[in-house]
Amino acid sequence: MDVRIDGKRVLADLTALRTIGAYKTGVHKPTFSEPHVKSLEWLVAKLPEAGLAGGIDGIGNVVGTSSRKGPKLLAGSHLESQNYAGWLDGPLGVVYALEAARVINNHAGAGDRAVEVASWCDEEGHFGFFLGSRSFVGGVSEADIDAAIDRTNGETMRAALKRVGFAGRPRVTVEKGRYRGYIEAHIEQGDWLETQKLAIGVVTSIVGIWQFKVTFTGVQNHAGTTRMAIRKDAGVAAVELAHRIKQRFPAIAAERTVWTVGRITLEPGAPSIIPGRAEMLFQIRDADEGVLKRMEAELETLVAESDREGPCRARLEAMSRSIPAKMDESLMAALDRGAEKHAPGKHIRMPSGAGHDAQYLARIMPSSMLFVPSIGGISHHWTENTSDADIVLGAQVYADACEAMLRGAA
Amino acid sequence: MDVRIDGKRVLADLTALRTIGAYKTGVHKPTFSEPHVKSLEWLVAKLPEAGLAGGIDGIGNVVGTSSRKGPKLLAGSHLESQNYAGWLDGPLGVVYALEAARVINNHAGAGDRAVEVASWCDEEGHFGFFLGSRSFVGGVSEADIDAAIDRTNGETMRAALKRVGFAGRPRVTVEKGRYRGYIEAHIEQGDWLETQKLAIGVVTSIVGIWQFKVTFTGVQNHAGTTRMAIRKDAGVAAVELAHRIKQRFPAIAAERTVWTVGRITLEPGAPSIIPGRAEMLFQIRDADEGVLKRMEAELETLVAESDREGPCRARLEAMSRSIPAKMDESLMAALDRGAEKHAPGKHIRMPSGAGHDAQYLARIMPSSMLFVPSIGGISHHWTENTSDADIVLGAQVYADACEAMLRGAA
Repeated sequence: MDVRIDGKRVLADLTALRTIGAYKTGVHKPTFSEPHVKSLEWLVAKLPEAGLAGGIDGIGNVVGTSSRKGPKLLAGSHLESQNYAGWLDGPLGVVYALEAARVINNHAGAGDRAVEVASWCDEEGHFGFFLGSRSFVGGVSEADIDAAIDRTNGETMRAALKRVGFAGRPRVTVEKGRYRGYIEAHIEQGDWLETQKLAIGVVTSIVGIWQFKVTFTGVQNHAGTTRMAIRKDAGVAAVELAHRIKQRFPAIAAERTVWTVGRITLEPGAPSIIPGRAEMLFQIRDADEGVLKRMEAELETLVAESDREGPCRARLEAMSRSIPAKMDESLMAALDRGAEKHAPGKHIRMPSGAGHDAQYLARIMPSSMLFVPSIGGISHHWTENTSDADIVLGAQVYADACEAMLRGAA
Repeated sequence: MDVRIDGKRVLADLTALRTIGAYKTGVHKPTFSEPHVKSLEWLVAKLPEAGLAGGIDGIGNVVGTSSRKGPKLLAGSHLESQNYAGWLDGPLGVVYALEAARVINNHAGAGDRAVEVASWCDEEGHFGFFLGSRSFVGGVSEADIDAAIDRTNGETMRAALKRVGFAGRPRVTVEKGRYRGYIEAHIEQGDWLETQKLAIGVVTSIVGIWQFKVTFTGVQNHAGTTRMAIRKDAGVAAVELAHRIKQRFPAIAAERTVWTVGRITLEPGAPSIIPGRAEMLFQIRDADEGVLKRMEAELETLVAESDREGPCRARLEAMSRSIPAKMDESLMAALDRGAEKHAPGKHIRMPSGAGHDAQYLARIMPSSMLFVPSIGGISHHWTENTSDADIVLGAQVYADACEAMLRGAA
């Protein structure tokens, strides 16, 4: 069955979503903000074009379903954005899903099969970690929602749900055995495709993100009267650990391992006071759990070294360890074939360095992801962009792959 | 003329001041807080005991003056504290001055000579840098006061002066030629005296404090999708500079040079974002301007190295450079003699690593400082303390030195 997407319609839909909550050339659509809710309503209104019906559920998810009895494919992404961020992170995957559902579900050859379209709420983590997709797979309790708080303004998720009118609605959860699989498209958010002049990335796995806090305890004192020899400067200890990480990690990292010191806090943080306490947020990402374990072991060694050498105490605390998610081999093959048909030689298999809803869907069904290039590798910034040609090409590859997945030819 | 201080009275006065604004075993008396103002009023009420008269002036200074016509010595310190800090930092010097004035001015042998007592406002810099003593020596304009803002709560100095009722009062400035010199006592705020089992420090100079800001500019990006090879992580650049400072500074420092990275800020400071900007506050202190210049030159070299090596830009900005102040040789000799009389072999000449009002008084008259030991070297913390015996001994040495200075025998 030959599916042909409408590139102009894809771009028009993305532009329509971009005008809701526009900020410079990007958008500002935090979870449950007015532009986010309007974007969800926009999607609900579009579902009938693909023969689907659905509404916004009790956690802000939209799942458009078909009444057909045959095999189904679930396709989606998210519609909220990071604060003052880009127009494609999220909406691209939703519009690809919508377009694939339109061209496939409306195709004479679809029979009793259908692509269903989802928008997962709060993928960007304003209130927590992948609350929408985790809710759909049964991983979010009412107590989790009780505890969720907007990291920017402190509003509780309960208050936000009430404010936007979603409180009290049931939450949609997955119907076991309904789907052949899940597909999610996303901008790459890196420069790997662009650098190699490629158009399509077929995601092999979504990285595990292991997050740590290292705390250094020294002695706070006067920065003028305390001789260098007797100082216990927690800031110096933090800097030395970060320096040693920089020296030693490259040798034990895998090709795509990344690690980041995202924050260093010296307390009290005044120019004339020797820091008595320091804190460092440290993160490691890799698609291979073995690599993550090796990196954590090295971090443990370095922190223990720091603690032993003194003069400050150093303590390592693991904050979170997400499990890398492997994408399904036969769905990847369907994406490979779609890419080879429309962009011969211009596609590659690659891991995803960012977390995505697909990693939670992968816990309950075969899942897959397609990447399109990010100009300059920029994301989580309003300058985020992808060329129109790459957007349209990606939509076509995606629709072809959906058709094959749905047919079971994957 | 034999002066004998009353140790119990010294301790009682210090205890009285400690109960005003008590916090644990220390005090919380920010500039122009209620306990600070009450402490100033306490001092004003005490001045007549020393034959002095005075009030609180338009910037919160108290200068108790004598109507005698002969030589005068100015003696003082400050009464406000750092936030939640110690009971002696400031009050010790004021009570020593008060006690010396009492025993000398009331002594039959004093003739037409007098010790005058001052409390300088805001030595602790809640609103600026040594605003009280600088005002007294003519170094604070009305525009400076207009611009001064409480660093803790953002209140303007104008509003604070109005709130406490000092607004509109004239500011007392020094009468040229009135004083033979200035003396200030203070806790050491370090462990030099304690470590060597000494009781008295005779200050040779007050360090210059040179303060810098180093700014690193990289590229903010996603911490998962941006490969290590292409990152421009401003935090990594900041850490490397701090590490090189630690490696290279000891070799070029003088014996008492100190340097401190008091704050490192990574922006935006989130675990999953590569810092695009970093800022480091860096401070060098030494009593020798030549040493300070040598250290600054090395810092310049290191920042230029960082900038040249990349991948981030590094920029050095000098925030302030205070000039080291030399204490007067003949006043130091008077302190040496007083110390040798009451604590033979237990005194030493030493530089002050902290800034003090004496460095501003030194611009217009011969000035001197006496240190007593700080237990554990702790200061700017509520556990700050000095043994009663050391407090009383220090007061006696101080009074003897005052008598000699006033007599011109110094």
